[in-house]
Amino acid sequence: MKKFMNEPEDMVKETIEGYVDVYKDRLKKLKGANVIAVKNKKEKVGVIIGNGSGHEPACIGFVGNNMLDCNAYGGIFAAPGPDTILEAIEEADTGMGVVVLISNHAGDVINSKMAIDMAEEDDINTKGVILYDDIASAPKGEEEERRGTAGTLFNYKITGSYAEEGHSIDKVVKMAEKVRDNTRTLTVATIPGTSPITGKKMFEIEPDEMEIGMGVHGEAAAHTIKVGKASKIVEVMCNKLIEDKPYVEGDEVAVIVNGCGQTTYMELMIFYNEVNKFLSSKGIKTFKPAVGSFITTQEMGGIALSFCKMDEELKRLWAKETDAPCFPKLLP
Amino acid sequence: MKKFMNEPEDMVKETIEGYVDVYKDRLKKLKGANVIAVKNKKEKVGVIIGNGSGHEPACIGFVGNNMLDCNAYGGIFAAPGPDTILEAIEEADTGMGVVVLISNHAGDVINSKMAIDMAEEDDINTKGVILYDDIASAPKGEEEERRGTAGTLFNYKITGSYAEEGHSIDKVVKMAEKVRDNTRTLTVATIPGTSPITGKKMFEIEPDEMEIGMGVHGEAAAHTIKVGKASKIVEVMCNKLIEDKPYVEGDEVAVIVNGCGQTTYMELMIFYNEVNKFLSSKGIKTFKPAVGSFITTQEMGGIALSFCKMDEELKRLWAKETDAPCFPKLLP
Repeated sequence: MKKFMNEPEDMVKETIEGYVDVYKDRLKKLKGANVIAVKNKKEKVGVIIGNGSGHEPACIGFVGNNMLDCNAYGGIFAAPGPDTILEAIEEADTGMGVVVLISNHAGDVINSKMAIDMAEEDDINTKGVILYDDIASAPKGEEEERRGTAGTLFNYKITGSYAEEGHSIDKVVKMAEKVRDNTRTLTVATIPGTSPITGKKMFEIEPDEMEIGMGVHGEAAAHTIKVGKASKIVEVMCNKLIEDKPYVEGDEVAVIVNGCGQTTYMELMIFYNEVNKFLSSKGIKTFKPAVGSFITTQEMGGIALSFCKMDEELKRLWAKETDAPCFPKLLP
Repeated sequence: MKKFMNEPEDMVKETIEGYVDVYKDRLKKLKGANVIAVKNKKEKVGVIIGNGSGHEPACIGFVGNNMLDCNAYGGIFAAPGPDTILEAIEEADTGMGVVVLISNHAGDVINSKMAIDMAEEDDINTKGVILYDDIASAPKGEEEERRGTAGTLFNYKITGSYAEEGHSIDKVVKMAEKVRDNTRTLTVATIPGTSPITGKKMFEIEPDEMEIGMGVHGEAAAHTIKVGKASKIVEVMCNKLIEDKPYVEGDEVAVIVNGCGQTTYMELMIFYNEVNKFLSSKGIKTFKPAVGSFITTQEMGGIALSFCKMDEELKRLWAKETDAPCFPKLLP
């Protein structure tokens, strides 16, 4: 396996060590736990997440002001333990309580819920909000069964920026639910990534095919299509997305075009260009798109496309500046 | 070929279209020429670059305040024509003259020099500075023969920030030369990228080997090593870099750990962590490292490692905030 690493069992530790040194002006690692946290805490509702590693820069890259206060960081593609998530909750609490944003995957949900129970026993007011956005993983009407994927980035940013304004925990929970309900994501996969633990490809895709609806760990896709032009792939994906919510004429949506790993910046921009044309043809306006590789599956090829319906409040929060190292410079 | 694109001949045009829409709050494309430019021009010496595409986010991603004023953007791995570079020079000139930073590759040098001559004929005070940093491409003592690679990013940022302070063209040229002379780069390649034009791998590397010293287009490497631990690869590379300049005990260096395309963020952070340990063991201090995929060769696997010796002035300029979309958030 041609990865720059030492021992597989040290990857997570060494990634954190490097990362926290690079951004030591604003971030720290908690002693004894794989938790990345902001250095300058404010008195406000804490917003945290616990997630598996292997998807970098998610989610270490989104800890910062106006975003997440802490990220409890697990093993490769494995949720962090409840004790680690609890440490993140305790760190983020300044007396106003903590909201745990939970991407809907079995391990994340179970461990986050256990951590929340433990925190409540310690008299920390803690609420979990389960995030789901992947329209391929369950049909319309069963939204709660859907997986959490790239669209969670809308929530990390908007709910994080909202909490920083000093709102109560109940209002922060409501905001997280609103952003979730406004968000839809669909992914197209082209090339598998390699597990850094086994050195093996994580799944298989035929050389002339792309998989629409694949999950972030190679979970089965809904729809296989032949390799074709970006304009055609975008049309198929956008039609599914706008029908599901639905997003309609007159709507304004923020867009994420997320590279899954080895997809080039050129491809992301060409793909975004087609999305922009498609939405425009439907009378839907794009607002401050985020185009880049934010939530990856190692060096997987593919793109996750997410929409979030905006209003004036959401626009203001999405565009707020953040020092979280890997969130794009959207400018207010 | 599994790339998200339409027709190969439209890739550059569509990349620019998408990019300029995403960052329309601060960037524009010139009419009739593939030149990206800042919207809010200041009266100052202009700093521009002309380079081939295919290395994104370089160099479109580094146009912004405190960085480049314009990027004349060529075909895939092909320098832009002199006419395109001339358009960038004309756009960037506010009466104080323009510095063209030229990465040392034959096409870039020839076309930039022609454009500079044409600009001089039009009475625009224009100076070129040739940038070279890749220690594998020519021996010590023949620095001027070396190729321009990832270390050029130091120049785009520091010289760009310096020009924005209002210095004269002669002083801006001197700063560019100083940054160049303080910079050294070495690259290790693991996996070839795919040309989006031919659909073919751009070069070959044996499955159990890595190539130390490969150029950004697959130019021959100086040194082949077996796949091994990151700590070992870093030791080999750092030793070559510190001997060449030399960087010595007591020095402070800014570091770039640049992913060449499909190298994961985990790998970059693990690699940086080893670099930091190595430099520390030599009594050399790292200053505000830039770790990410800044200058790529499509989805090539590999890392370019660059050092630039700092002083108080260079530190201030390197850390200055910029709205260039793809320069990292170093924080001042």
